[in-house]
Amino acid sequence: MRFCPSCGAAVTQRIPPGDHLPRSVCTACGTIHYRNPKLIAGCVPEHEGRILLCRRAIEPRRGYWTIPAGFMEIGETLQQAAARECMEEALAEVGIAGPCAIVHVLHAEQVHVMFRATLVAPQFGVGSESLETLLCEEREIPWPEIAFASVEFTLRRWLEDRAAGREELHFHTIE
Amino acid sequence: MRFCPSCGAAVTQRIPPGDHLPRSVCTACGTIHYRNPKLIAGCVPEHEGRILLCRRAIEPRRGYWTIPAGFMEIGETLQQAAARECMEEALAEVGIAGPCAIVHVLHAEQVHVMFRATLVAPQFGVGSESLETLLCEEREIPWPEIAFASVEFTLRRWLEDRAAGREELHFHTIE
Repeated sequence: MRFCPSCGAAVTQRIPPGDHLPRSVCTACGTIHYRNPKLIAGCVPEHEGRILLCRRAIEPRRGYWTIPAGFMEIGETLQQAAARECMEEALAEVGIAGPCAIVHVLHAEQVHVMFRATLVAPQFGVGSESLETLLCEEREIPWPEIAFASVEFTLRRWLEDRAAGREELHFHTIE
Repeated sequence: MRFCPSCGAAVTQRIPPGDHLPRSVCTACGTIHYRNPKLIAGCVPEHEGRILLCRRAIEPRRGYWTIPAGFMEIGETLQQAAARECMEEALAEVGIAGPCAIVHVLHAEQVHVMFRATLVAPQFGVGSESLETLLCEEREIPWPEIAFASVEFTLRRWLEDRAAGREELHFHTIE
């Protein structure tokens, strides 16, 4: 941030009174602009034991595989965001169940919240942000071509939990 | 947002190509500025069956009671944020345990993530954002003076879970 979104004047980096971190402070109107981590919501869409994956048509990591996930919007819940992303990326309607993983991706300034989900019907397609989609068995997961560490973490915990007959929430931090 | 934080020119509200929602788009450099929900992290700090509450010294809801909670910063985990807020507001060191509640506060454009926590020692004080703090029994909780609906939801689920001998994660949405 170089300019104040409120008044257009230049901002400077300064620790406000009573604060402990440098913030972007407007040199004209004095407004303090805070920067906070962004939420990503996603899901592991399952149908009869198989998982729906998407190959990314957009950067970052174009051509690599992911579970449906994306930035949470204003006005929706995490579950609604996860279901929306699945519809947008894989044209698939899902029922969202419990959370599977919460991953702090510190370098990206993001928190990823990944849910368990079930396809409402065995119907899916290729959304505009995907090159292709695949309903795959565990042995078919293209591990070396998974787009993000948070997605690999989520898939591995999901598979371990399924094998163990449990459904847990797993936290993880990526530096 | 009225001005572009990148270049200082005016922004306009427009649906970018391939998008489905109006965004703040810079009329000069074309940068799209997204707005996303912010994360609040907090905890229910427990010591020998009692809960540590803080009376707010700042707006909103000055004078009302809350559990320690605040905006998550860049570069920290949710658990670190929850522990930091407890130190800042109640000068109390806690060990953070599992999550107790995730509350979508739609009107505030926030997601509140509240953890279970235990005081490391029976030591606490009054941080600069608090008027007073109180280590209280369940029957002493000042319900009519609780600052936020998300805090009341968290406290009630925490107490129910304790009475039932379980530790669950509860989702909730406040319109």
